[in-house]
Amino acid sequence: MNDVARLAGVSIKTVSRVVNDEPAVHPETAARVLAAIEQLRFRRNAGASNLRRGSATGTLGLIVEDVGNPFFSGLTRAVERVAVGFGKQVLTGSSDLDPDRERELALEFCARRVDGMLVVPAGSRHAYLEPELRAGTPIVFADRPPGDLTADTVLVDNAAGAAAAVAHLAAHGHRRIAFIGDSPEIYTARERLRGFREGCVSAGVGQDARLIALREPSARGVADTVHGMLTGPDAATAVVAGNNRITVHLLRALAHSEHRPALVGFDDVELADLLDPPVSVIAHDVGVLGRTAAELLFARLQGDQSPPRKVVLPVHLVARGSGEVAPA
Amino acid sequence: MNDVARLAGVSIKTVSRVVNDEPAVHPETAARVLAAIEQLRFRRNAGASNLRRGSATGTLGLIVEDVGNPFFSGLTRAVERVAVGFGKQVLTGSSDLDPDRERELALEFCARRVDGMLVVPAGSRHAYLEPELRAGTPIVFADRPPGDLTADTVLVDNAAGAAAAVAHLAAHGHRRIAFIGDSPEIYTARERLRGFREGCVSAGVGQDARLIALREPSARGVADTVHGMLTGPDAATAVVAGNNRITVHLLRALAHSEHRPALVGFDDVELADLLDPPVSVIAHDVGVLGRTAAELLFARLQGDQSPPRKVVLPVHLVARGSGEVAPA
Repeated sequence: MNDVARLAGVSIKTVSRVVNDEPAVHPETAARVLAAIEQLRFRRNAGASNLRRGSATGTLGLIVEDVGNPFFSGLTRAVERVAVGFGKQVLTGSSDLDPDRERELALEFCARRVDGMLVVPAGSRHAYLEPELRAGTPIVFADRPPGDLTADTVLVDNAAGAAAAVAHLAAHGHRRIAFIGDSPEIYTARERLRGFREGCVSAGVGQDARLIALREPSARGVADTVHGMLTGPDAATAVVAGNNRITVHLLRALAHSEHRPALVGFDDVELADLLDPPVSVIAHDVGVLGRTAAELLFARLQGDQSPPRKVVLPVHLVARGSGEVAPA
Repeated sequence: MNDVARLAGVSIKTVSRVVNDEPAVHPETAARVLAAIEQLRFRRNAGASNLRRGSATGTLGLIVEDVGNPFFSGLTRAVERVAVGFGKQVLTGSSDLDPDRERELALEFCARRVDGMLVVPAGSRHAYLEPELRAGTPIVFADRPPGDLTADTVLVDNAAGAAAAVAHLAAHGHRRIAFIGDSPEIYTARERLRGFREGCVSAGVGQDARLIALREPSARGVADTVHGMLTGPDAATAVVAGNNRITVHLLRALAHSEHRPALVGFDDVELADLLDPPVSVIAHDVGVLGRTAAELLFARLQGDQSPPRKVVLPVHLVARGSGEVAPA
């Protein structure tokens, strides 16, 4: 009663009047009192059910690299959609590709007793999560597999995608193809490079270490790298960009350049279809990636005890024009 | 001890050996036991501090329209950055512009006893949050103000931005300027239309109801709308696009059209600078919007009791080319 009065900002007497349905209370005041009662009851129930040791808290933890990156915000949105359908809320955090930050976030989420966790790993060591898994908290890894831990994982077929990019460029006459990828610490960057190499072998295209660069992308770094690769007698005539950030940096670096190599990017980019030439990409649906991972997590929450699963989602080439530019 | 053994998946005897630093335990097993101890202690502490009635839970609630939209994911990221600095986690939810969903999310967050809440409102009725505000949970509204409630609010200068877009187009000779905005239920859509109208008056440009459209944007809807406005004797020669979604739909609708009006979009769009012509926009920094709102919230959490504040952030025209196209 005291709480209701405080919340509604009225006297206890007024609360009593409203509860006993006495007249002489202004309708707006009565509505405020009723709202406060409803809210307190709601709060108390939610609080009480969360306090029972071991019971569900109704929250999932989601760790991505950077929720401000369209790729990860699309994934977050897809996870949220599934979670809402099961009446769960999502706690999100960005690791910034820092394994310590990932660990901190994950343990923080566990300390808050999330019902389950979805992780886009920043690091390659995840044994620290084994006690949580053993204790029955389901954890699903998305986009990249965990290191030193066996757990449910949803990936995309990175190697096949990069190989398809090379095949496409080779089919249009390119023999000097460069690969600019993200930091080699990232699983997807390594896999895409592996696919790139396999694609070169399959297409009979030579590989040149000077035309391969793997590092954390920045506008300046990508510009310097690509300009270096596009000059000299052994210049590249085509480039495979390792992810959406690199594609954007490349497009900007090449916009006013005299060298315009053929280009295939990994991940689709908004407005890529409207550029001149339209940008060809290896596309995969991040919504499907997020949804698949979330559905796997909910299957576990609902008692699925089968062995850990690894799901690999397909990718496909969207040929729009930039990959069909002939060698200069 | 039992919990540690269960978490680490070893016998109680083994835990005892590790704790007493006895030999004959495999180093990996010992590490697992120590990790389990650390984790349980961490979890217990976090749990215990959350259980104290009225104490901080270390979480903020954030409600946006759609975390998959780059505008809102940028805002989410900015909020997250500030929260991390204060050791807080962020619960996020997308309202999909549904006032009922917003209310549900907000009450859900309150029931989970978030320390504070940031809301991009979907609806125009927020009295339901008054009991929470009274109970001491700070709430800051971002991008759009609350309805029937006085609370901290951070906005951008929507009207000034739209007026600047009209002034720019008028300066390049346009007299038939269209406005395509989002649903009139959205505050920013109404404000931008108001600014558009004011800009027309200031520039001596006539207004024609047939050249003004406000509705929830879809690719098809925007295409139909703009094609209608660009044909006939009184066709528009320039368009102001009300937000990032509308700009993207417009660009796609006009890509292969014979009519290419001058264009200024509200909100910047990735790759807009690389299109032909590059797209001029009214830009504002969503990172600053999110950061300002989050900092206001933390000031309240740290005891700032001053009256509710309204902060209006500036916007600016980025003239890249599409707004400087002369009338046909």
